[in-house]
Amino acid sequence: MATTSKANSRKSKSSAAKTWVYRFADVDKAEAYCDGSWDGVRGLLGGKGANLAEMTRIGVSVPPGFTVTTEACNAYSKNGGFPEGMWEQVLTALKSVEEATGKKFGDVANPLLVSVRSGAKFSMPGMMDTVLNLGLNDKSAEGMVKLTKDERFVFDAYRRLVQMFGTVVMGIDDEAFEDYLTEAKKEYRVKTDAELSADAWKKVTEEFKSIFKKEVGEDFPQDPFKQLELAIEAVFKSWDGKRAVDYRNAAGISHDLGTAVNVQTMVFGNMGQNSGTGVAFTREPATGESMLFGDYLINAQGEDVVAGIRTPSPIAQLKKEMPEVYDEFLKIVTRLEKHYREMQDVEFTIEQGKLYMLQTRDGKRTARSAIRIAVEMADEGLISKQEAVLRVTPEQVSQLLHPQFDIAAKQEADMSGRLIGHGVNASPGAAVGVAAFDADLAEKWGKAGKDVIMVRPETKPDDVHGMLSSKGILTSRGGATSHAAVVARQFGVPCVAGAEGIDIDVRSRILTAGDVQIREGEVLSIDGGAGEVFLGEIPTVEPDFEREQFLQKLLGWADEFRRLSVYANADYPTDARRAREYGARGIGLCRTEHMFFQEERLPVVQRMILSEPNSEQEAVELEKLLPFQQDDFYGIFRAMEGLPVIIRLIDPPLHEFMPDHESLALRAAGLRLMGDRPNELAQIEDLMVAVKGLEEFNPMLGLRGVRLGIMRPAINAMQIRAIFLAACQLSRERVIVKPEIMIPVTSTYMEVKTIREMVDKIAVEVFEELGVEVEYKVGTMIELPRAAITSDQMAQYSDFFSFGTNDLTQTTFGISRDDAEGKFLLEYVETGILKENPFQVLDREGVGYLVDLGVRQGREANPDIEIGICGEHGGEPKSIEFCHNVGLDYVSCSPFRVPIARLAAARSALIDDGFSPKADKIAKS
Amino acid sequence: MATTSKANSRKSKSSAAKTWVYRFADVDKAEAYCDGSWDGVRGLLGGKGANLAEMTRIGVSVPPGFTVTTEACNAYSKNGGFPEGMWEQVLTALKSVEEATGKKFGDVANPLLVSVRSGAKFSMPGMMDTVLNLGLNDKSAEGMVKLTKDERFVFDAYRRLVQMFGTVVMGIDDEAFEDYLTEAKKEYRVKTDAELSADAWKKVTEEFKSIFKKEVGEDFPQDPFKQLELAIEAVFKSWDGKRAVDYRNAAGISHDLGTAVNVQTMVFGNMGQNSGTGVAFTREPATGESMLFGDYLINAQGEDVVAGIRTPSPIAQLKKEMPEVYDEFLKIVTRLEKHYREMQDVEFTIEQGKLYMLQTRDGKRTARSAIRIAVEMADEGLISKQEAVLRVTPEQVSQLLHPQFDIAAKQEADMSGRLIGHGVNASPGAAVGVAAFDADLAEKWGKAGKDVIMVRPETKPDDVHGMLSSKGILTSRGGATSHAAVVARQFGVPCVAGAEGIDIDVRSRILTAGDVQIREGEVLSIDGGAGEVFLGEIPTVEPDFEREQFLQKLLGWADEFRRLSVYANADYPTDARRAREYGARGIGLCRTEHMFFQEERLPVVQRMILSEPNSEQEAVELEKLLPFQQDDFYGIFRAMEGLPVIIRLIDPPLHEFMPDHESLALRAAGLRLMGDRPNELAQIEDLMVAVKGLEEFNPMLGLRGVRLGIMRPAINAMQIRAIFLAACQLSRERVIVKPEIMIPVTSTYMEVKTIREMVDKIAVEVFEELGVEVEYKVGTMIELPRAAITSDQMAQYSDFFSFGTNDLTQTTFGISRDDAEGKFLLEYVETGILKENPFQVLDREGVGYLVDLGVRQGREANPDIEIGICGEHGGEPKSIEFCHNVGLDYVSCSPFRVPIARLAAARSALIDDGFSPKADKIAKS
Repeated sequence: MATTSKANSRKSKSSAAKTWVYRFADVDKAEAYCDGSWDGVRGLLGGKGANLAEMTRIGVSVPPGFTVTTEACNAYSKNGGFPEGMWEQVLTALKSVEEATGKKFGDVANPLLVSVRSGAKFSMPGMMDTVLNLGLNDKSAEGMVKLTKDERFVFDAYRRLVQMFGTVVMGIDDEAFEDYLTEAKKEYRVKTDAELSADAWKKVTEEFKSIFKKEVGEDFPQDPFKQLELAIEAVFKSWDGKRAVDYRNAAGISHDLGTAVNVQTMVFGNMGQNSGTGVAFTREPATGESMLFGDYLINAQGEDVVAGIRTPSPIAQLKKEMPEVYDEFLKIVTRLEKHYREMQDVEFTIEQGKLYMLQTRDGKRTARSAIRIAVEMADEGLISKQEAVLRVTPEQVSQLLHPQFDIAAKQEADMSGRLIGHGVNASPGAAVGVAAFDADLAEKWGKAGKDVIMVRPETKPDDVHGMLSSKGILTSRGGATSHAAVVARQFGVPCVAGAEGIDIDVRSRILTAGDVQIREGEVLSIDGGAGEVFLGEIPTVEPDFEREQFLQKLLGWADEFRRLSVYANADYPTDARRAREYGARGIGLCRTEHMFFQEERLPVVQRMILSEPNSEQEAVELEKLLPFQQDDFYGIFRAMEGLPVIIRLIDPPLHEFMPDHESLALRAAGLRLMGDRPNELAQIEDLMVAVKGLEEFNPMLGLRGVRLGIMRPAINAMQIRAIFLAACQLSRERVIVKPEIMIPVTSTYMEVKTIREMVDKIAVEVFEELGVEVEYKVGTMIELPRAAITSDQMAQYSDFFSFGTNDLTQTTFGISRDDAEGKFLLEYVETGILKENPFQVLDREGVGYLVDLGVRQGREANPDIEIGICGEHGGEPKSIEFCHNVGLDYVSCSPFRVPIARLAAARSALIDDGFSPKADKIAKS
Repeated sequence: MATTSKANSRKSKSSAAKTWVYRFADVDKAEAYCDGSWDGVRGLLGGKGANLAEMTRIGVSVPPGFTVTTEACNAYSKNGGFPEGMWEQVLTALKSVEEATGKKFGDVANPLLVSVRSGAKFSMPGMMDTVLNLGLNDKSAEGMVKLTKDERFVFDAYRRLVQMFGTVVMGIDDEAFEDYLTEAKKEYRVKTDAELSADAWKKVTEEFKSIFKKEVGEDFPQDPFKQLELAIEAVFKSWDGKRAVDYRNAAGISHDLGTAVNVQTMVFGNMGQNSGTGVAFTREPATGESMLFGDYLINAQGEDVVAGIRTPSPIAQLKKEMPEVYDEFLKIVTRLEKHYREMQDVEFTIEQGKLYMLQTRDGKRTARSAIRIAVEMADEGLISKQEAVLRVTPEQVSQLLHPQFDIAAKQEADMSGRLIGHGVNASPGAAVGVAAFDADLAEKWGKAGKDVIMVRPETKPDDVHGMLSSKGILTSRGGATSHAAVVARQFGVPCVAGAEGIDIDVRSRILTAGDVQIREGEVLSIDGGAGEVFLGEIPTVEPDFEREQFLQKLLGWADEFRRLSVYANADYPTDARRAREYGARGIGLCRTEHMFFQEERLPVVQRMILSEPNSEQEAVELEKLLPFQQDDFYGIFRAMEGLPVIIRLIDPPLHEFMPDHESLALRAAGLRLMGDRPNELAQIEDLMVAVKGLEEFNPMLGLRGVRLGIMRPAINAMQIRAIFLAACQLSRERVIVKPEIMIPVTSTYMEVKTIREMVDKIAVEVFEELGVEVEYKVGTMIELPRAAITSDQMAQYSDFFSFGTNDLTQTTFGISRDDAEGKFLLEYVETGILKENPFQVLDREGVGYLVDLGVRQGREANPDIEIGICGEHGGEPKSIEFCHNVGLDYVSCSPFRVPIARLAAARSALIDDGFSPKADKIAKS
């Protein structure tokens, strides 16, 4: 049920004196009633009513009319009837319209026809639709025929009234009318409504009236005032209809807003060759180019434009056909754009040479267009740079930066049953290619120039070469932090992960989704941003950051406004260079262990793992790894010259680098049966024991991160040494390096203290060896609740904090993302147990509490500490807003999301400073 | 290095006027200096000095002497020499002793001999030992021979001085002296020191002096004042010795306390048949019985009692041998016990008919004795009931309630190499039995009356029948929450888990630990409280709670004082009855899923799991499980009549009930090779797919607890229905039931709301069906950080909270206990990265922060909410203190720990109210 508003609680006695109805021309009075607040006017008159009034005020030709207020609606909801005085005010306003038009409502000779439309503050599905042509009845129809000499036009209008009134106001099923219309066309042997004659419409009108009577039990009301009364009441009732209430509950719209009712004079574009109708945008909605864009039809109604039977003409044509009308139209829309300071989408009708504006509203546009319009409007001085930044959403930037499927083509594919599966939207972007069921084939085909989608139940480190050669990756298992997902995001390869409804049979090389099968080499398409899988090819649109000049300009402005710095997560020099190109001001997370997975290193890594901690053999293997790591760091430092690079020490548990036990067991069983390769069997059995020893029940909570750093100090020591060797080498080459070493998975300050001491010691050693010193920082990754809770202690040993909100979310919720996303998390979000997936949007109540606590305590203990975030939330706009609000110094995200983060950070700062994308009151023109 | 104290920072100039030395008789002056604080006196004079002074004050005959203060020691540490005036005060005090004894220090005819002993505020290893007989030199020795007519006695004393002075003061290795003594005994052809003649001792003395000279480079000092000076200085120096500093660092004792030095007249119990020496306790130290208990020897020195060459007589014998001395002794010790209000351990010497008390201190005692003494002293009115409760530690109660190994026997076994391994102390208690390598054999032997230790690499649900038939359980894998550990604690079966150094070869049925092998059927012993494994049998002592009348009385008092209620964790009626017997006031955690593992139910459970959620088949299988669960709950409710029973809905992930994938894969591979049982193979392959589908990367953070309850609501619904059916059934039988339903693994209030609605709905249904209603509660288990952080929201849908601190610790630290304990957690504690294992003692800084936050917010949102804890910390005294401090309503622990928790809760309340086990100032007598 709708809750009551303050307005509603007024006694109806005092209502007598109240204004329930405002003519479009009375906008100043409405504004005064609302204490000058335009938002108030929109609340009182609804969005549509306010805009019609505003156009009227600035002198645009709008068919006269009036608005019954939302307060009247609320009073109706409360009392079950029109408030005192409202109907009288409707009649008075109607009289004023009659005066303006010279017509008379219900008159037989020259009848005034009106439309009735609902119009709440926010547009809302489930509200009552339009009823046109009120005022027609049997007698006034005859009068109009005399007046217009167009019987066909009049009875088409009349039957529309009966049909609309019957369905919309009285709730008759539209099928009753449409079925008869179909019958009538058969009878008259025509195919379209347009071919029906005046007689036919006359007959249809009569039949519609019979249907009305049969369904409602009463005659179609001949009294126009009764028509009007019932129509207004129907609008009021629709506010409390189930669909509208459900929608408001879901959208969080207050139930006490109420809806307004707009009553407006009908104008007709189908009254001859000097009449017409059309729609237009003040700028090109696809590209944003500054030009008038639209279509019109001569001697037609709005519906005819939509129906597409006649091909409309481009708006430029109007200049030739009706030069005066065109000039007036151009003047009006230019004025409207300036007035609203926004690209406008307008509807107009020309009735016998006279131009009427029926609607103006902010025009919808593509991402590309939105960016160009915002930038050019700011350049034109129409809006400020701040407004320009606020008018573009991070999602629009995101759209521009990933290959996208053509929207229409995607819809078409969905309609035709080619959307064959859903999974986790693991890495955004669209990709089309042939299915390859293993990494080697993907690489081979990729190198041969084929576009490949690599298709696997799940991926492993061994698969990376194939993944890098693919245009997209599809897995049937694992979630958004599965190996496939992480690697895919890292390299900007579109990926749909854990598509559970899809069966991927690697042996038979067939992908099955319901009835559909895709064999190796057959084409499929994936939308990594939407998590969708399509059969066959969907056409794509490709991005190119360098050529996006408007975006670059906008982001340049964003950089002026934002207070958060934006870093990128990058593991390789190529990533780092891309990050820098996209505007990153540092590397916030360089994961060292990805380097361990590379083909030539993995065997060394495995031998190192199997050696005794602190043994001779461990030292030997680590010595072999050192130059690799040194080269890695050298490359990244060089790419990021002058900017900070935060390197995280080894993080994952060691068993991630080893083969799995079950496959070893199966191999061993096989060898045992054959009985002829005892040495190999013995080796495998040894390996099985070692792998068993490394296995963990809950590896996420096991021997990893700093724990590994403490239990196997030689690994960390090698990494630290490699960092300093690379940094010093570059420093000698006069390249400025800013290495920062980050300690992961900490839960007590003693861990930080222990590793920090190791870093400081090795730094001194290397500086002495190479005779050169570099500045460096040592910091702590805050990714466990206890680290956040004891951040005051952590801060005493840390130059910086970086919140690892992926793991922090996992431990705060006690949810393993990989396990949860397919199994219950998505269902949790769907059923409303969680409002959002906390791995996509940072959970402010739980995880956010710990981040805020960590920041406050950390800063208190160490005022110089630098604090950032390097979880995936660092590239998500709502989460970036949170990061801004709690006062972080930077966010770090994948290179591809850097532009998004730059914009989101600026928007947060601007909103914080009180800017809004559009002033409350529109500009006076 | 020692840190400096305030006393030390005083200028030495002003030191001249300072008192550095107090005679035992000057205790009032010392007390005045310390502003009347007895703790201050102990700080100034050390524990030993303060006690000697106190005995002197109350008129007990103590050999005269004096104490050099701890302040002097600190001044020495700072300046490197005695502070100004100290030595003069020593000489003055010495003079006073000479006057009291009529002897003279360094006199040839009647020399005063003294002992020098260190004595800090807290007794401390690493400090300087005693030096006896100072004052002897070549000349005074001759004088004493004349005086005592006992040359043997005098030279034995003299050689002791040289030896002690040489080793203790000058740092000579004692071997130098002992080697010669061995040689001398050979030479004199005797076996013991006692057989050596006066001449022999004379020769030994000379030889010792030579050794001294050789080692030190100087003659043994003949000047008694030099002896004294060096001895005092040696005591001072020992305060800053490495061993003492290390000890203080480890024990957290401040370095600026300093040690005092006690100088006391020597008395000799070996001066004839009217002399003697002995030790006594004022109560029996093993049983606590109120009787004088001790031994003495006539004509002997203290060392002779210890050496055990002559058999000492029981103290009662003294009454016959020296009735007057005995009466005086009895009077003194009775007075001392009353004075100190504590059982005393005294040393005494009778020198030629005169009784001297050399020492009194609180007597050490067994756990049993401590309890009886505390209870009886309170009954006698000597101490208050509050003090009695505070004088018994929870550890002492724990000792009484588990079978314990005889301590001496255990030490002996350790010494003789029978301690063969260490593991996690998973379930306390001692057990002896024969090794059985599988559950069936363990059950068979157990039923046959054999004491069995079940020995497995790890245990599974299938093994429970064997575990229940065993006296103890030993595993080589898994930690304190492994299956073995959890089941063992549940049933009070001693268990050592994850003994990594021990190899358990189930196939060959041999346990190997280093060189030692134990075959099936051979005897071993395990100490589950210490995590130790022994070869062969160690004798045990058995507990019996009902017969522990003193403990029962003490716990009755504890119940009067404690503000925390004590519940127990119990899954079965037998547990519940035991818990009640041990004093539990409710069940705080009844785990329903253990019931699923039972032999006849597991196949039904597995079929239920494999069925589609919300399918017909799922319903069928659940219908089969319902009566089992109903019976389970019926039994527990009946056992706990009138008391609350908190039942936790299903918690573990479903794959725990399934066979593991690798073993299925191996079976499948085998069948494939044989190729003759295609149906079985197909079945296994189906099962493999199902098991794979249930597998999780991190099951602790996966689909379990309330998540399962939401995704598979029928399981919870069955459990809830079973609970209400059982409760209503009992209610009809006029048994009062208080069911409380607990929702596990919650992270958002929406989960609680969802399940609560389900509970309320089913309750109404069952009440209507059975025509009877019972009161019930629904509560939330707070075991994830987010639940604690959002406890205000949780509280709105919860009648109670129960902190599951096991999982809360795991998620707050991001540490999986099973993985961590063997791999790094114990090492973390050993190296000091963590002060304590947070799974044993609740981590106040991290986990405690969340508990405190959860309680405060929860109570604010719902003031009636009941809050408790059901993690294992609920039975651990330090954690219970924390629970008391944050204001919980109850703790819940395993039945066996209920008495411990009752005591710990009372102690926390008493300490909170300002009680202490012993007043600061001792009672005036």
